[in-house]
Amino acid sequence: MNSQSPILETVPARLARVREAMAREGVDALLVPSADPHLSEYLPGFWQGRQWLSGFQGSVGTLVVAADFAGLWADSRYWEQADKELAGSGVELMKLIPGQPGALEWLGEHVRAGGVVAVDGAVMAAASARQLSERLQPRGVSLRTDIDLLGQVWQDRPALPSNPVYQHLPPYATVNRAEKLAGLRQTMREKGADWHFIATLDDIAWLFNLRGSDVSYNPVFVSFALVSQSEALLFVGRDKLDAHLREVLAVDGIEVRDYTDVGAALASIAAGARLLIDPARVTCGLLDHLDDKVQWVEGLNPTTLSKSRKDEEDLVHIRQVMEQDGAALCEFFAWLEANLGQEPISELTIDEQLSAARARRPDFVSLSFSTIAAFNGNGAMPHYRATEQSHALIEGDGLLLIDSGGQYLGGTTDITRMVPIGTPTLEQKQDCTRVLKGMIALSRAAFPRGILSPLLDAIARAPIWAEQVDYGHGTGHGVGYFMNVHEGPQVIAYQAATTPQTAMQAGMISSIEPGTYRPGEWGVRIENLVVNRELGKSAFGDFLNFETLTLCPIDTRCLLPERLSAEETTWLNDYHRTVRERLSPLLKGEALAWLEQRTVAL
Amino acid sequence: MNSQSPILETVPARLARVREAMAREGVDALLVPSADPHLSEYLPGFWQGRQWLSGFQGSVGTLVVAADFAGLWADSRYWEQADKELAGSGVELMKLIPGQPGALEWLGEHVRAGGVVAVDGAVMAAASARQLSERLQPRGVSLRTDIDLLGQVWQDRPALPSNPVYQHLPPYATVNRAEKLAGLRQTMREKGADWHFIATLDDIAWLFNLRGSDVSYNPVFVSFALVSQSEALLFVGRDKLDAHLREVLAVDGIEVRDYTDVGAALASIAAGARLLIDPARVTCGLLDHLDDKVQWVEGLNPTTLSKSRKDEEDLVHIRQVMEQDGAALCEFFAWLEANLGQEPISELTIDEQLSAARARRPDFVSLSFSTIAAFNGNGAMPHYRATEQSHALIEGDGLLLIDSGGQYLGGTTDITRMVPIGTPTLEQKQDCTRVLKGMIALSRAAFPRGILSPLLDAIARAPIWAEQVDYGHGTGHGVGYFMNVHEGPQVIAYQAATTPQTAMQAGMISSIEPGTYRPGEWGVRIENLVVNRELGKSAFGDFLNFETLTLCPIDTRCLLPERLSAEETTWLNDYHRTVRERLSPLLKGEALAWLEQRTVAL
Repeated sequence: MNSQSPILETVPARLARVREAMAREGVDALLVPSADPHLSEYLPGFWQGRQWLSGFQGSVGTLVVAADFAGLWADSRYWEQADKELAGSGVELMKLIPGQPGALEWLGEHVRAGGVVAVDGAVMAAASARQLSERLQPRGVSLRTDIDLLGQVWQDRPALPSNPVYQHLPPYATVNRAEKLAGLRQTMREKGADWHFIATLDDIAWLFNLRGSDVSYNPVFVSFALVSQSEALLFVGRDKLDAHLREVLAVDGIEVRDYTDVGAALASIAAGARLLIDPARVTCGLLDHLDDKVQWVEGLNPTTLSKSRKDEEDLVHIRQVMEQDGAALCEFFAWLEANLGQEPISELTIDEQLSAARARRPDFVSLSFSTIAAFNGNGAMPHYRATEQSHALIEGDGLLLIDSGGQYLGGTTDITRMVPIGTPTLEQKQDCTRVLKGMIALSRAAFPRGILSPLLDAIARAPIWAEQVDYGHGTGHGVGYFMNVHEGPQVIAYQAATTPQTAMQAGMISSIEPGTYRPGEWGVRIENLVVNRELGKSAFGDFLNFETLTLCPIDTRCLLPERLSAEETTWLNDYHRTVRERLSPLLKGEALAWLEQRTVAL
Repeated sequence: MNSQSPILETVPARLARVREAMAREGVDALLVPSADPHLSEYLPGFWQGRQWLSGFQGSVGTLVVAADFAGLWADSRYWEQADKELAGSGVELMKLIPGQPGALEWLGEHVRAGGVVAVDGAVMAAASARQLSERLQPRGVSLRTDIDLLGQVWQDRPALPSNPVYQHLPPYATVNRAEKLAGLRQTMREKGADWHFIATLDDIAWLFNLRGSDVSYNPVFVSFALVSQSEALLFVGRDKLDAHLREVLAVDGIEVRDYTDVGAALASIAAGARLLIDPARVTCGLLDHLDDKVQWVEGLNPTTLSKSRKDEEDLVHIRQVMEQDGAALCEFFAWLEANLGQEPISELTIDEQLSAARARRPDFVSLSFSTIAAFNGNGAMPHYRATEQSHALIEGDGLLLIDSGGQYLGGTTDITRMVPIGTPTLEQKQDCTRVLKGMIALSRAAFPRGILSPLLDAIARAPIWAEQVDYGHGTGHGVGYFMNVHEGPQVIAYQAATTPQTAMQAGMISSIEPGTYRPGEWGVRIENLVVNRELGKSAFGDFLNFETLTLCPIDTRCLLPERLSAEETTWLNDYHRTVRERLSPLLKGEALAWLEQRTVAL
């Protein structure tokens, strides 16, 4: 079921047109990051220029086009996908490896001395533009951020999204927007900031208790926010808020302006005023509107830390959501087990059935990301997505990897489970067992409050490294509350910088998802969500540990139980008992029987 | 056996005199780091100004003197010691905590706007001076590095050391100095450097296969080196090398100049030349000699990485040294066990007996650091040192911590063991068992080649954090080859910056030494040295693991064997079998009997 994607046919033609535009403007190299003015993970079609121009559909990648070169930098998650999608496009896959040179380094070395590099400033983080400028400077290469070359040649560019904005209401919204604004303003005073500008959509949605559907999976809406002690300005497309919502916001002192007015508002900030911004989370194109005499106070958006720390009321809702999500998974798995071999089931069928099971659950809003149902070799691509053109039938022997999640009004889920198909091999079971050991090791860990989260990664990897196995992605990412399934500031990944903002604090929700990928053969990943809990205060300081939130059996038929230590077996049996106790009341019939069968103690 | 140190009586008088000098020079605050022009760990008396002025004898600490304030910043290892030694001195202990403000931050905040901070540029790393200047700049405070205020008032300042320099010869020196110089010059070419300046004494001693005894414990000599493709200049006190050694060095193209000629040599480097230096390892006072047009190529001294990677021949010698050192420890422990309760034994007696046992071993040169023999409450001070004035008798019940090491022509040792005295308590045994679990966890670990060493620390700490216990020091430091017992570039400490230079490479020797400290009660630390070995190459990359080098029983009477997992018990039994097999041939009588008794399998 493999065929070439039709998009590839036009990539060389598009590259030719953009190269003509580059020649007209005297540009030696064009940088096209995967980015929008909000530096989002999921981009509205209007900002998917990198996909349009390169043909590579993966969510993260950086394209460089020069007269005699076009290269796409992507990390190991995307190598297999990029290899396929770039074939014949004239765009070279440049493998991005942590600690090795990337696109910026390439530009620093390859553009002729005195040349010009262009990037659309509207989609380039100020911090990245600063870095790139510094890298180009030694050879006298200049950086232009004031032209949108892609826009000049992109004739069928999609429109900006115009979906309605709605409120995230109590009981699910547990802190009202007036309190959130007051907290933000308190932090601004502590930092001596007169203004704070926010471009990141999840920060804005969280701050104002609003949600939208402008992009897939993340319940956010395209907007900017500018806050002072007396003003709170929300910049959003004119027709996206109804009159009632505007009134509700006005009561909380929030003024709605048009999305396109943001530049003028930034330009009107008085010289000498102090503006709190995160240069990694605001584009240089926007900041170019500022008066030169506005003082930047650089720092993480305060909402990013506040948003990451879920409170006890949030957690009550999240635990309920995990039960509903777990019940949906049980219904799906029961269906899968009953019907495999009875009817043709493909990776696409799995996505449909699982999505339908979730959609039957109360307060379900949408998926939290595109389901990854990946059989055998497809599982070796951590970000694989089955398509109509290219997907596998589930048949024969092997491993099926299912990574999926939902958005509910009371929380966001993200879970990966392995399913044995026919008879998995010994090596496949070894991989599953080793990965589970890694997940258990970190799930059981305690650690000092404030430890920088990248430093915890080795605890998950130690049992995996022990057998000379490793994986290229991080072990864990932060997860929002009816919000983006990927959020900061914490990140459990040894590849990440150990910056102070990555410190672990109570209430943060993270994934724990070690894996093993054997290209062309199979992939293994097992993932639960966990929340940082106060463990206690000892003579040695305050300690946190994890409460596992995700509730769904881990299929023991993929495991070699004799390779688990006594502690690991106890953890798994305890986990399965909890799963059974909490999901049973929500299930009946085949799904309940499946739950009971799959949670039998080892 | 506690009494006030006599040095304290004079600290207030010294502070008064230095404050007079500060007033004369218009200096608001004086910074006195623990440093010399070589940024060494052990300072010749000439450079022990911080000790002289503050009365605090610990090896690491930073003093700030202002008109109405004097503060000493020290990390948690030294808090108990500093509390005692600073009592009544007028110098306040400022507890240095990773991630919290230190002396530089204090200066940045407290010195009056437009004021002057002074530090002796001869002992301030260029990188630190740069950092401090940046911190002072916002409030218009200036940094003076051209006056030695301490020198103005320090009347009885010791002379510079003048001990002879000698060769480290084959078979122990396994690479000759011509080869080492050629390797360094190759790296200089790769970095495009015309010159390389070295101020760090272990780098110089390693490069030239020379050793000395200018400071305690580290077999180095006070010197500088300046190397180009054609020249190799060694700056060292006139009378420290005899005529023969000068001739030997001349054969290898090494020119010896006087120690005091270094400034002139730096000044004579041609404008436009490219000089490789590590700004963290050269003082600003020395670099002030350079022509403004000399270009700095900043980077780790290449010798630091070369020196850290012991080759197979080195390891043959090191394993023999570990056997000799282990045999000395067995003789000592046998004596201790036979004589405890028979005669008064103090912490000082232990140092004497253990040092004598080591001194009887072939190729022993000196201790590698001051023995820490610390009974009960004294063990809670990680860098405790018993003195004639203040030491404990070993009597009653509890734990004796012994951290010691030797310099041998074929290697350097560093080991910590716990000794049960009378009947240790359950809590003491819990602490020992938990610390051992941490040591075993890291000792058994495998990891990708090139992993940044600070990231491995969590593997040792996980079993300790699990019970809400932690320790303030790093888990492991690099160890030299008949060289400094503390060397870089690797460091297994989550508190350390994860810089690229900390990457783990084959041949590096590190300590693994987790601990637990209960102030006033007891301290626990267990320490082995390990070397990074090539484990193998898999589909997932190259992996390293540790070979444990240290050979000495771990006293199981301090443990709760039922708390060890099956894997941990197997590790300990395997270790004890190896220790018995390798040390037995070197022992007889009581020492052999002791070895056999203390290596019985659990």
